[in-house]
Amino acid sequence: MPTAIIVREVGLRDGLQIHPTFMPTADKLAWISAAAAAGIREIEVTSYVPPKLIPQFTDAAEVTRGALEIPGLKSSALVPNLKGAERGLELGVPMLNFVVSVSRTHNLKNVRREPSESVADFREIVRRVRTESAARRTIISAGLSTALGCSYEGRIPVDDVVRLAVELADAGADELMIADTVGYADPAQVRRVFRAVQQEVKTVPLRAHFHDTRGTGLANASAALDCDITRFDASLGGLGGCPYAPGASGNIVLEDLVFMFDSMGLDTGIDIGKLLAVREQVKAALPDMPMHGALWRAGLPRHYVSAATR
Amino acid sequence: MPTAIIVREVGLRDGLQIHPTFMPTADKLAWISAAAAAGIREIEVTSYVPPKLIPQFTDAAEVTRGALEIPGLKSSALVPNLKGAERGLELGVPMLNFVVSVSRTHNLKNVRREPSESVADFREIVRRVRTESAARRTIISAGLSTALGCSYEGRIPVDDVVRLAVELADAGADELMIADTVGYADPAQVRRVFRAVQQEVKTVPLRAHFHDTRGTGLANASAALDCDITRFDASLGGLGGCPYAPGASGNIVLEDLVFMFDSMGLDTGIDIGKLLAVREQVKAALPDMPMHGALWRAGLPRHYVSAATR
Repeated sequence: MPTAIIVREVGLRDGLQIHPTFMPTADKLAWISAAAAAGIREIEVTSYVPPKLIPQFTDAAEVTRGALEIPGLKSSALVPNLKGAERGLELGVPMLNFVVSVSRTHNLKNVRREPSESVADFREIVRRVRTESAARRTIISAGLSTALGCSYEGRIPVDDVVRLAVELADAGADELMIADTVGYADPAQVRRVFRAVQQEVKTVPLRAHFHDTRGTGLANASAALDCDITRFDASLGGLGGCPYAPGASGNIVLEDLVFMFDSMGLDTGIDIGKLLAVREQVKAALPDMPMHGALWRAGLPRHYVSAATR
Repeated sequence: MPTAIIVREVGLRDGLQIHPTFMPTADKLAWISAAAAAGIREIEVTSYVPPKLIPQFTDAAEVTRGALEIPGLKSSALVPNLKGAERGLELGVPMLNFVVSVSRTHNLKNVRREPSESVADFREIVRRVRTESAARRTIISAGLSTALGCSYEGRIPVDDVVRLAVELADAGADELMIADTVGYADPAQVRRVFRAVQQEVKTVPLRAHFHDTRGTGLANASAALDCDITRFDASLGGLGGCPYAPGASGNIVLEDLVFMFDSMGLDTGIDIGKLLAVREQVKAALPDMPMHGALWRAGLPRHYVSAATR
């Protein structure tokens, strides 16, 4: 079993993108800064989508610049296309996240592109980034969304996931993110899919990005850990959800995930007490957004000793 | 991995015992009967505690008699002592559940007995049951509560769990229930504890009884499954909780657990659609009791095919 885990906060992107109310830039930066102070080492801070599509990300440049000032924090941002990647390069963000859906229907609905067209777009992004940031060595992550199920197509064949993973790895991805976009996964499926991809893509590390729509999120994360995955996405209070399922939990709950890993003796570098305080801060800043999770209510176990100090 | 799983409903006992409002006997029986019709094959229907201690169980005899009329349903009941076991024998309930805390402090607070005194009580119960029901072959389960953590003592040494498990097995238990009474467990610990007990107690089957107080319940259930455990306790809507942690989830959410297992291809014998309807029925009958869970809100995945019909 691995001993150190990276849990990335994606609430500022995956959580906020469905939130209709603009979160003030200062609140976003206060969140990022408090999360970093609690020991979160990676944050997906924003998305370089056109502001007219998602007004929440109108302040993408300011948020990125603010985040880049925090020492030791690895910021990343979603880039929907080449133009987004160019904005990321200009701003100097160290990690860019591109996403393709394994489900053809989902990719068409989401970005109006065939998955193969999205892979071609990704190749172009890699080419541009490698040319323009040879020295800076920007990290390029390729995500496979709906890899564990799709609300249009249902179950997704494992072979389709593996094929797309190989294509994106061949295109030059530094990391592959396997996403359960709509919370359909179970632990057996997680092991099956991650192991199948690992079998064919041996040199590119995988990241697990799970949603907790049906309660299986932490079980799936534990199953990914069994496959030696050490990179996990999550969001404070499970921010995210789906605009079409009010109250449904979104991403797996970051603080519960960190508690689980920490309790297992894994080093996350995160101070759980401080993390729960950040949750309160974010909750106060987003009063109309439902937050989920269990640890914040129950508190840590009696005589709990964090992995870091055991 | 096992292919068939028994999920027992314990909400009528573990859920209701902390509920201050008496649930009418007819509602309890309607719940039991609807759950059985949805495919639940085991239900802990009540507790033979003195009604003056827990008035909720004043109707223990009627509930037991009603449950015993349902064909194919294996009913069980909690027996706190020899007197409770005698009531169970009289009523003819096929399975009796006795519990001892691994944590000495918890056992003293809970039943004012040293764990060793409780083991002696259990021996006496086994003797009585074996004498009086030789033909009927009543099943006697011994539970180890606080086996994965205690709100007084914190972490519980694995050796203490193994020692008590051996004593209860030697005393004649037909089953050992390992309980995470206060929701402290993580998947690594679950594997450690279950495997350690299996190592020393080879012939008595184990049951997993987890609470979901900190969000790790289904991850722990999945970890127990990895240890070939096929008997699980849960309650609809996660009924249970702790009177001192308002809103905290209690037992693991039965419908989410069944969804996870079913999704993994395991046969639970349960119709998830019918189960969600029972949840609504119970919710209507217990309007002032918080219910938890994710599946009821999100619904089954698109094109979902139950394990039973795959």
